Amino acid sequence: MDKILRIHMGPDHAPKATTEPIGDYAGFGGRAMTSAVVAKEVPPTCHPLGEDNKLVIAPGLLSGSAAAMSGRLSVGCKSPLTGGIKEANSGGQPAQVLGRLGYAAIILEGRPAEDKLYKVLINKDGVEILPADNLKMLGNYDAVEKLTSEYGDKICCISIGQAGEMKLGAATVACTDMELRPSRHAGRGGVGAVMGSKGVKAIVLDDTGMSMRSPKDPDKFKEANKAFVAGLKQHPVTGQGLPAYGTNVLTNVVNEAGGYPTYNFKIGRFDKAASISGETQAETETARGGKATHGCHRGCVIRCSGTYMDKDGHYLTKQPEYETVWAHGGNCGIDDLDSIAMIDRLDDDFGLDTIEMGATIGVAMDAGLAEFGDAARAIELVREVGKGTPLGRILGSGAGVTGKVFGVERVPVVKNQSMPAYDPRAVQGMGVTYATSTMGADHTAGYAVTANIMGVGGSVDALKPEGQIDLSRDLQIATAAIDSTGMCLFIAFAILDQQETFQALLDMINSFHGLNFTADDVTNLGKTVLKLERDFNEGAGFGPKDDRLPDYFLKEALAPHNITFQVSDQDLDTVFNF
Amino acid sequence: MDKILRIHMGPDHAPKATTEPIGDYAGFGGRAMTSAVVAKEVPPTCHPLGEDNKLVIAPGLLSGSAAAMSGRLSVGCKSPLTGGIKEANSGGQPAQVLGRLGYAAIILEGRPAEDKLYKVLINKDGVEILPADNLKMLGNYDAVEKLTSEYGDKICCISIGQAGEMKLGAATVACTDMELRPSRHAGRGGVGAVMGSKGVKAIVLDDTGMSMRSPKDPDKFKEANKAFVAGLKQHPVTGQGLPAYGTNVLTNVVNEAGGYPTYNFKIGRFDKAASISGETQAETETARGGKATHGCHRGCVIRCSGTYMDKDGHYLTKQPEYETVWAHGGNCGIDDLDSIAMIDRLDDDFGLDTIEMGATIGVAMDAGLAEFGDAARAIELVREVGKGTPLGRILGSGAGVTGKVFGVERVPVVKNQSMPAYDPRAVQGMGVTYATSTMGADHTAGYAVTANIMGVGGSVDALKPEGQIDLSRDLQIATAAIDSTGMCLFIAFAILDQQETFQALLDMINSFHGLNFTADDVTNLGKTVLKLERDFNEGAGFGPKDDRLPDYFLKEALAPHNITFQVSDQDLDTVFNF
Repeated sequence: MDKILRIHMGPDHAPKATTEPIGDYAGFGGRAMTSAVVAKEVPPTCHPLGEDNKLVIAPGLLSGSAAAMSGRLSVGCKSPLTGGIKEANSGGQPAQVLGRLGYAAIILEGRPAEDKLYKVLINKDGVEILPADNLKMLGNYDAVEKLTSEYGDKICCISIGQAGEMKLGAATVACTDMELRPSRHAGRGGVGAVMGSKGVKAIVLDDTGMSMRSPKDPDKFKEANKAFVAGLKQHPVTGQGLPAYGTNVLTNVVNEAGGYPTYNFKIGRFDKAASISGETQAETETARGGKATHGCHRGCVIRCSGTYMDKDGHYLTKQPEYETVWAHGGNCGIDDLDSIAMIDRLDDDFGLDTIEMGATIGVAMDAGLAEFGDAARAIELVREVGKGTPLGRILGSGAGVTGKVFGVERVPVVKNQSMPAYDPRAVQGMGVTYATSTMGADHTAGYAVTANIMGVGGSVDALKPEGQIDLSRDLQIATAAIDSTGMCLFIAFAILDQQETFQALLDMINSFHGLNFTADDVTNLGKTVLKLERDFNEGAGFGPKDDRLPDYFLKEALAPHNITFQVSDQDLDTVFNF
Repeated sequence: MDKILRIHMGPDHAPKATTEPIGDYAGFGGRAMTSAVVAKEVPPTCHPLGEDNKLVIAPGLLSGSAAAMSGRLSVGCKSPLTGGIKEANSGGQPAQVLGRLGYAAIILEGRPAEDKLYKVLINKDGVEILPADNLKMLGNYDAVEKLTSEYGDKICCISIGQAGEMKLGAATVACTDMELRPSRHAGRGGVGAVMGSKGVKAIVLDDTGMSMRSPKDPDKFKEANKAFVAGLKQHPVTGQGLPAYGTNVLTNVVNEAGGYPTYNFKIGRFDKAASISGETQAETETARGGKATHGCHRGCVIRCSGTYMDKDGHYLTKQPEYETVWAHGGNCGIDDLDSIAMIDRLDDDFGLDTIEMGATIGVAMDAGLAEFGDAARAIELVREVGKGTPLGRILGSGAGVTGKVFGVERVPVVKNQSMPAYDPRAVQGMGVTYATSTMGADHTAGYAVTANIMGVGGSVDALKPEGQIDLSRDLQIATAAIDSTGMCLFIAFAILDQQETFQALLDMINSFHGLNFTADDVTNLGKTVLKLERDFNEGAGFGPKDDRLPDYFLKEALAPHNITFQVSDQDLDTVFNF
């Protein structure tokens, strides 16, 4: 992993690939890599769909090794949704395969002169860029099937669906899982639209003939990995909750806490939550011959994924995540798991961010395009996106655009990106993260649900402003660091609570790379990444007023706690004081 | 004109009207009034369509008097299009009538609890607010006809069409002209959407029984007015060009200068411009029994308006303005005046800003929704807006949203508002105004075409950056002042060139109000208004990066001069140094 692959798409020449030594980007992985490249090489004022934007795809520092949980793939660019910097990451196989192929990053740059589609093939022999007009306007599932029939089942794919080709704000970059299903997505911020603007439909990776990456100190690495895995298995969240029920274990927890945004963020508790909880979901999956516990990539020991079969026992989609079940479920008043799973499948196939789409359908329901609770109509609305109708394009552009087009005031976005499944009034720490993250409203950027609700990494009263700034700041720094290792963020539960598991992570990185990384170094890495990102956003025109929740969260009290967002603007402006 | 009328729409009570003394707003007219009220009473971070925004409607300082050219009506609010402060002004009768009724401003505030429509009736006896659901989704022409049949032909109307009811970003507020046609519009920034969000379909004004406002010093006033009119008649632009050909006299001038944005701002000269020039237009109008010279309100002596008949000699629309002919003509490669006039009629009827709509159709053409030059398809696209289809709502939301929804990079907006009919690369002074105006891209905010192309008010090379900052700054200050008098902006040609005409204007204001306003006071008024507006925008989150043209104007050279926008960012940041 000591080289960078650049795919130059034009417009002054035919698409071509060049490889260069990692150079100044040595030591960067995942989000640190994508944000460093974007910050250095992309003009902050460029048009996100223009020739000057770049799409950076980077595995983690330990991807392609035997390290557990090292399979996240970061995708970065200037976001067409937020207008700021973006890193979205995904599970699935590509990070591991890319690591074994020796690439620390793939950078898509320029733009083809003509409106043509391409695919990029990468294997041990090198890189080929070929026309892919036969994949035009195929969904991810069909596209991957075509690619598999052509290139065999040892490949894995990074691809876009119709949404990416249409350059929509909610478009994702899909990654295939161990079963070659395009079910894992770098979901947020329209990264798929940038891939679409580059004219790249798919990147096909094949690591046949390559071997696993070797640590510098194999014995120490093996030992550290073992301790790390033991730590994950020992923690109740990563050892029990997530494996048993997946992320959807959170439905009952967040609903109980009164922070489950329902009916487009009108109340904080959904009376039909039990019908769509992780417990119900796992039971349904198992009863139909699906799996409630499954890993999205080789080397995963948490196994929070699953497979969701339809009523006839045929594969429909991967186990929908908590945020997806919320977005297309409670947020829209929908309590039918089969409908939610169908929408999840459609979102994955079209290449759409389930969070953005669920929030958008909620706004559309407020606009009168559907009744809250009308699952059939919600499915129809999502299908419109795949068809590329004007209505579909509106919805696929996200909640912000949909609110503008339909004149809706209640639009739950920050920096034009939809809020996820935690109402910031009842989980005030999340409100701080939503408001101030460089990414726009994003739960993964600083997951204050930990100390606010789960009692992980300390405890801070979810309903009070006190302590939320420090909590969110620390989490944002830690997250930027974890995202930069390329480790799955879910390791955070264990490393926040268990010092020895954190040490095991450090030992893994150090023994693999021959480094002496300390806890302080990790914190500093997180700070460095956040500062790079914040500087980019300032260059793009963001200021303090962009670090705010929409007005109505400050004015409308949320039931059942009857509380507004309490953290002051002045305090929000201190999050980046570090 | 010593009272303010407030229309409180709810939501906690039924709509009601209150009248109060002008108080702190004494001495403010037009834009100074609307911007002062918005700056003082509207929270800059509020949602533009929410209950906290206000729509302020203000006549000028001399409206309702015998002063020539005193019939502009300012409409202000927080703009749903730009997110910043907005003043758009309109000709037509309402300013004069409102002045005679004694109101210095009407302020629409709050929002009805239910989705109902209202009309506001104002006459010598007071104010009534009545349900107007029978006007729902009527165009301005039909709505005014209904109101006239009910309230007689002594009224004048301020109304919104379907676009305003749908709360679209391109929605206007329409004013009736002397023939009770809703053909004059406060066009820019979506002011009609704010009126729609207040649930007010129309304001019906009737000044029967009221008399013309009297000056404090009638003799001096009469003399000043006479000198003022003489000055306007003597200047070649206001005395000859505008009366003979209307604003469309500019087509040949700007096209010749190579600054006529053609095919969505791709080149600066339209080879078919002669077919749609003011000269051709006036000839067509006259041949069909229309008028090439006509005033939009009583007291107009420039008479730049006209009436455009269809081929059968029936009234189709008012004489389309230069910006309209450009927007729906050259910018879309369309060279057919009848089609352009038909679109002008549709825009007026639906209540749409012709500049925003023309720029939007240009972007839609780049997106492949129509071929450049296809007038029939352009008409269909505008009709979609009236129907409220998803496609129509996209287009009616303006060029920025349309570009996002269709993934188009080439979107000629600043602060999300479309540029008018002067390419900023070939008329660099206009580029400075577009970039830095508090209003978003707006030619009227600081019309540098004067010194850049027309040789009015001095001469500054249109193709060079030198001198453009000072030119635009001075014009922006002067314009803010003129807009605050409520005088038609076209007086600027004469008062820039003729010191005695400027003095006559001052004498008019002073003799009317018993003041001693000097030239310095005028400049200071302009500065005060701009600073109020700029502060509001900063409060709403605008910073220096918002004072920029889109990237492509700095990268793509414009034919025939093959020039990019040359004014540096550093220089742009000095415009407000005063």
